[in-house]
Amino acid sequence: MNKQDSTAIRNFYNTSLLKGKSYAWLDHLSNQIGARLSGSLNAQKAVEWTEQELKEVGLDKVWLQSVMVPKWTRGVTEFAYIETEPGQTTNVPICALGGSVPTPIGGVKAEIVEVKGLEDLRKLGTSNIEGKIVFYNRPMQADLINTFEAYGGCVDQRYSGAAEAAKFGAVGVIVRSMNLRLDDFPHTGTMSYGDLTDLEKIPAAAISTNGAELLHSMLTLNPNIKFLINMNCRTWKDVESFNVIGEITGSEFPNEYMVVGGHLDSWDLGDGSHDDGAGVVQSMEVLRLFKETGYKPKRSIRVVLFMNEENGLRGGKKYAEVAKNKAENHVFALESDAGGFTPRGFSFDCNDENFTQIQSWKPLFEPYLIHYFAKGGSGADIGPLKKDGIVLAGLRPDSQRYFDYHHAKNDTFDAINKRELELGAATMASLVYLFDKYGVQ
Amino acid sequence: MNKQDSTAIRNFYNTSLLKGKSYAWLDHLSNQIGARLSGSLNAQKAVEWTEQELKEVGLDKVWLQSVMVPKWTRGVTEFAYIETEPGQTTNVPICALGGSVPTPIGGVKAEIVEVKGLEDLRKLGTSNIEGKIVFYNRPMQADLINTFEAYGGCVDQRYSGAAEAAKFGAVGVIVRSMNLRLDDFPHTGTMSYGDLTDLEKIPAAAISTNGAELLHSMLTLNPNIKFLINMNCRTWKDVESFNVIGEITGSEFPNEYMVVGGHLDSWDLGDGSHDDGAGVVQSMEVLRLFKETGYKPKRSIRVVLFMNEENGLRGGKKYAEVAKNKAENHVFALESDAGGFTPRGFSFDCNDENFTQIQSWKPLFEPYLIHYFAKGGSGADIGPLKKDGIVLAGLRPDSQRYFDYHHAKNDTFDAINKRELELGAATMASLVYLFDKYGVQ
Repeated sequence: MNKQDSTAIRNFYNTSLLKGKSYAWLDHLSNQIGARLSGSLNAQKAVEWTEQELKEVGLDKVWLQSVMVPKWTRGVTEFAYIETEPGQTTNVPICALGGSVPTPIGGVKAEIVEVKGLEDLRKLGTSNIEGKIVFYNRPMQADLINTFEAYGGCVDQRYSGAAEAAKFGAVGVIVRSMNLRLDDFPHTGTMSYGDLTDLEKIPAAAISTNGAELLHSMLTLNPNIKFLINMNCRTWKDVESFNVIGEITGSEFPNEYMVVGGHLDSWDLGDGSHDDGAGVVQSMEVLRLFKETGYKPKRSIRVVLFMNEENGLRGGKKYAEVAKNKAENHVFALESDAGGFTPRGFSFDCNDENFTQIQSWKPLFEPYLIHYFAKGGSGADIGPLKKDGIVLAGLRPDSQRYFDYHHAKNDTFDAINKRELELGAATMASLVYLFDKYGVQ
Repeated sequence: MNKQDSTAIRNFYNTSLLKGKSYAWLDHLSNQIGARLSGSLNAQKAVEWTEQELKEVGLDKVWLQSVMVPKWTRGVTEFAYIETEPGQTTNVPICALGGSVPTPIGGVKAEIVEVKGLEDLRKLGTSNIEGKIVFYNRPMQADLINTFEAYGGCVDQRYSGAAEAAKFGAVGVIVRSMNLRLDDFPHTGTMSYGDLTDLEKIPAAAISTNGAELLHSMLTLNPNIKFLINMNCRTWKDVESFNVIGEITGSEFPNEYMVVGGHLDSWDLGDGSHDDGAGVVQSMEVLRLFKETGYKPKRSIRVVLFMNEENGLRGGKKYAEVAKNKAENHVFALESDAGGFTPRGFSFDCNDENFTQIQSWKPLFEPYLIHYFAKGGSGADIGPLKKDGIVLAGLRPDSQRYFDYHHAKNDTFDAINKRELELGAATMASLVYLFDKYGVQ
């Protein structure tokens, strides 16, 4: 750590803020391509466009890595209503959870049983649940400072809610959206039916937080109201897609690999600007900043735009599998998948020796108000690279607004602040630079 | 610093996030009252409503402090256009700067001379400026991490631009808006004519950043284009207004005063949610959090909602003057006037001994990601309280988006995130609590 390092880092920030490409790239990805769920035409467009853009950056290699991905489509827009008596209905905003089966044609209508989670459900048992729609309504815990913790404390309802409720004879589930704000956007997200057979699967939808509050109030007044869900989503056969990879080959240790990445797929409701268009363009920008500032890395640095993080993680698994088969020595990986907000720091999945080294770099980040360096998770896509000695890291932007947009229709380009996005890219470039220069312990 | 402190602080955060009033208060102030420039009817409504709300919090005393304030009105909406040849015009968004004189009826039309600042202007001199409109177009410096520094590096154009240009015979000035983003909102703000006589004063307007870029491009193509500004703003006689003050009287040292405040007035274009509705409701919330959590302060704690920060600072000066006349011993003051964004910490205007004490409290703030404790400015309204031994502090929220909204039409309630606002209030309460408990050195 010396004057050269602080100059290099200042250079990354200046270049990102004054001559950055991340914002213009995200504008294109969000507004010219848009939502890009795995297996969709837009996902393919995103693959082709990012490959082209990486080639224009002048990297040493750019290639596509084939991967088979699930394909699920939402179909005609879903709808739902609360029926207080025949003909008396109130619409509420819902959306199918990713991977859900459709309802029968005309929808499924049943009484509602409200629970605060899977525990509650088990207590109620078959006698209270059979033939009903289960309404999971445990809200995210607002007094947790890190909103990802609040998400972690709720998401079991979305992921496993249908599989569990089906065991007790439920005919459908609706899940309160993973959103700390009260608004009208339903938030989708992945779910699993576990080991249920096709015949046992029941439809699963998210309801907006305002919708959940309304439904809760109406159930308090009259527990016998009915709820109708209509969805015609569908799972198709797996299709071929791609991870997009670009590399600057290392000048001294070309066989030591460092990865920086985000996921190229998004949910289908917004345009995926925060999740994870931001991570995609920031990762591309890291390599571009190296080129632009003339920094020639000693180790090989790859940008990897992973396909299918949202509903399968096939891209992350494939990348790690190929790396293992080729015996590529990966020493460091960094993912940005927590939104394009003001960066606060990183969390690290690494050994103590490396963490000590990382902490010695903190003063270099202080001028940029990057203060958070903690042990913790990194990123879903780079998780499969985990092995002894590798350092995995996740960019940690300010988390307060992330779940206002996550997996919802309002995750769009206008929710991105240019400077915040650019600061994230520079922060990532600085960390990659330090690992490149000082190596991994 | 002990377990009791961390529990008290946890309590402030939990209460603010789970049962806070700041967001609902701001909703009312912004949406039911709205813009509240000094001397306006809305400013008076804001005085009456906040007085009433503070009474409902159950403070020991609530009162109004009379202060004479300037009154300036914008009049009919301004307009401006670029004229490439007679009849060929392009509209650009402008707004009068606060305190500007109007144009003559029908507007002022003249050729434009573009400068990068006051230095440039002086170099050009009377021969190049006389009879023209001066266009100040030095942008905010994007590579500064703290956007307030970038503001500080530009705002002389807005504040003194007209006074300086008038000396060289200019007939008007337009100033690039203090905004790091390219968009269509002109940003107003205060200006001064210095010692010019009324006859020497020339009209001054802000132009949106996109408008400034357009004008710059058109001037490059043709330096002889003309520009028309039409404004009918007006300065009236001073009128009476009020600071709104509430107090919890200290249990042990009632004659030691601690102030927490923001300014109640706002510019007239948006509804002043970030500047400084946020600071107003956060300051009110600090005292409410003390009541709600049952914390009984040893020192007297006042919330002061200052009138007229934007164009005169009369409220801040009046409060300090009265305090001095009454020989009230003020030991600490904290202002929130940097937007309702995620809090990052505080800056302090204090002696080294106090700053050492403050730094010893950092670990208590770590769970809330409050990491920034630096010497620096505090707040305009509390500045007049400065004397030996007092600690002045300013809340420092994340600054990246502040100037997207500052003094512009889009500074509205929808730009506020509830959690970010609430975190700010809890952070302020925690600092006031620590000063109350441990005193000032």
